[in-house]
Amino acid sequence: MTDLVPSRPHGRRVVIVGAGFGGMAAARVLARQKTVDLTVVDRRNHHLFQPMLYQVATGGLAPPQVAWPIRRLLGGRSNVRVLMDEVTGVDKSAREVLIGKRRIPYDTLVIATGAAHSYFGHDEWAPFAPGLKTLEDAIAIRRRILSAFEQAEACAVADDRGRLLTIVVVGGGPTGVELAGSIAELARFALAGDFRCIDPGEARVLLIQAGPRLLEPFPEPLSWKAEADLKRLGVEVRRGAAVTACDAGGVTVGGERIPAATVLWAAGVAASPAAAWLGVAADRAGRVPTLPDLTLPDHPEIFVIGDTSVVKGADGRPFPGLAAVANQQGRHVAKTVMARLAGRGPAPFRYRDHGVLAMVGRNSAVARIGRIHLSGRLAWVIWGVLHIGLLVSLRSRFAVMSEWIWSYLTYRRGAQLIIGRD
Amino acid sequence: MTDLVPSRPHGRRVVIVGAGFGGMAAARVLARQKTVDLTVVDRRNHHLFQPMLYQVATGGLAPPQVAWPIRRLLGGRSNVRVLMDEVTGVDKSAREVLIGKRRIPYDTLVIATGAAHSYFGHDEWAPFAPGLKTLEDAIAIRRRILSAFEQAEACAVADDRGRLLTIVVVGGGPTGVELAGSIAELARFALAGDFRCIDPGEARVLLIQAGPRLLEPFPEPLSWKAEADLKRLGVEVRRGAAVTACDAGGVTVGGERIPAATVLWAAGVAASPAAAWLGVAADRAGRVPTLPDLTLPDHPEIFVIGDTSVVKGADGRPFPGLAAVANQQGRHVAKTVMARLAGRGPAPFRYRDHGVLAMVGRNSAVARIGRIHLSGRLAWVIWGVLHIGLLVSLRSRFAVMSEWIWSYLTYRRGAQLIIGRD
Repeated sequence: MTDLVPSRPHGRRVVIVGAGFGGMAAARVLARQKTVDLTVVDRRNHHLFQPMLYQVATGGLAPPQVAWPIRRLLGGRSNVRVLMDEVTGVDKSAREVLIGKRRIPYDTLVIATGAAHSYFGHDEWAPFAPGLKTLEDAIAIRRRILSAFEQAEACAVADDRGRLLTIVVVGGGPTGVELAGSIAELARFALAGDFRCIDPGEARVLLIQAGPRLLEPFPEPLSWKAEADLKRLGVEVRRGAAVTACDAGGVTVGGERIPAATVLWAAGVAASPAAAWLGVAADRAGRVPTLPDLTLPDHPEIFVIGDTSVVKGADGRPFPGLAAVANQQGRHVAKTVMARLAGRGPAPFRYRDHGVLAMVGRNSAVARIGRIHLSGRLAWVIWGVLHIGLLVSLRSRFAVMSEWIWSYLTYRRGAQLIIGRD
Repeated sequence: MTDLVPSRPHGRRVVIVGAGFGGMAAARVLARQKTVDLTVVDRRNHHLFQPMLYQVATGGLAPPQVAWPIRRLLGGRSNVRVLMDEVTGVDKSAREVLIGKRRIPYDTLVIATGAAHSYFGHDEWAPFAPGLKTLEDAIAIRRRILSAFEQAEACAVADDRGRLLTIVVVGGGPTGVELAGSIAELARFALAGDFRCIDPGEARVLLIQAGPRLLEPFPEPLSWKAEADLKRLGVEVRRGAAVTACDAGGVTVGGERIPAATVLWAAGVAASPAAAWLGVAADRAGRVPTLPDLTLPDHPEIFVIGDTSVVKGADGRPFPGLAAVANQQGRHVAKTVMARLAGRGPAPFRYRDHGVLAMVGRNSAVARIGRIHLSGRLAWVIWGVLHIGLLVSLRSRFAVMSEWIWSYLTYRRGAQLIIGRD
């Protein structure tokens, strides 16, 4: 069955699969071009601002403050169609995207399906150590963390209480650092005084990093600064130690068994199944190698961007898996499509590295902005202002800002709900 | 295993099971009494403001705007303990609440576990027609409604589109009226312009009421006013017709088959299993009959309140299943406990009927306040002011009010997220 929606009088048909940072950046530009007939397909109905997802997972923000309906973001334009559906494959020769039996024809295809977690060949760990990629993940992690405190309060056996009050975060990249810092602050400040049999401030929060330092994409001094700030919050940082076992009872790290009721996974990235759809060989992380202009070799009509692809910069090194890279790649694709429609040729993608930021906790963040290194309160203010600015609507900015100001003043969090069951 | 927490030096031990309106009303008063050693047990970690839950189900509000952690609401007092756990029974002779193998001793027990839905002997309808009692319910209903529009947009067959765009609400009480009105406005206003293959405004919203009029606890003229306002929003109201079949394809009402992808259940109430715990005979709706002072016959130390119980007022008629009744009963129980501790006897519960309110939609509500009947915009303003006032914190009031003002001005809703899967 081919697509029954009648063909449209507009120019070239562009199909974007995935409405994360890369897909949305391309879609926002192309939606404004009346000569483009744009279809955006995503499994979910919302675009998610992942850099603040850890705040949903730790009870600070509600899902609607970091996610917005895709069709609302692209809404009201007659040349744009949004489909919530699951892509099952790509027919490169017919130039059609497959959604089950349905086929969506394209002239240009943009694959921006992001990445999932990698458990380094230990997928059996997944149920015990959930990762943080979706709103469902965030709600489940929030449930696990808060339930552990509830169970400890109801628990009469001291040993069990110890296990319940131990939270292990695996992976010392930005997500791991932000999660660990936020959980430590939740336990020390937001939950203070709410319990009677336990002191939530005595919870152990461990951050496990297999590599030699935290935040490896950051300049080294900032890694040590972040680690010092985490330690001040009471987080135990274990570097140079890999997880060798993970089950319902806890984790084994560098030979040591750590009983823990809550283990969270913020390590390892595995690209989405795009390589299989396209019938190309992926790299070890499942990413699709592309040419410097972000197209598939021999298929200039197919772009693969963001965490789904791997492309080397001028220095021969692949670009890091950052929102900023996906964003710029999305805009580059949109520009390339428009250039082609105007009869001009493609250009290689260049990443403009403006810097990197990571939040540690109250008054504490680390940032490299251009060549400038910042930490502490100044970096924290910049993190806040920048992230408020990156939210997609005035309304979200207002809502998140009021939430943050209230939390800053009261040390409390506004979304400490346990929803659903494990 | 009896409770291992050491006995406390305070006076009488009060255990409250259930932190809805009734339980929380009692708990808030008793928590302030240092002579009372209070334990509150609930399956969930949050108290829920149910009158606004339909706004979560229809994408207007986020869960943290209508729910707050119970231990936060009662927090910081050394005579109060909050347990998130599932009560499994009551040992009346030993005066202990059973939580699995654990036993919590009480001197006074308050059962306030509320009610679930009743499918009138057709529990097999439950998966096809979810009810609205919990945050999980609200998130699931929101998912069903929004997914139906998404599927209709992706659907090429006109007949299927018709079924997908038909939403049936069963039950013409306040929840049914509020749901139907809110869904009609969602389709007509909030989703307008977001789709390309369908016009969401053409969705059929049906409200099925087995009785002769909507809002039966309201004065009759207000019922007709609410019905007229719903019809103006495009809701089809079917009165005097009962549902005789319900499955994945739709419902049968008064002999007519209505194909519908989304059926929501707002009819019928069945009390929680409290009667079984207490070993007493329940009425047909599963409610526990109590004496006029809200205690169990022969058990002056056990109170059963809110939707869990049935007690007749001075006019010989049972009190209606309203939040206000539960609220006043909770306060009455707290007063009775304090009176007893002071050596005074019990008093019968009297319900002070201040009135009833129900929202229909934008600028439209119905209200009886004392003996005054109100409808239209004035009732709508009163509904809003009153409900903002009933929220438990300044922060929630501020958040909900900004959300409402934004929605009123833009005709949009801020929480149109599809989370989880069916």
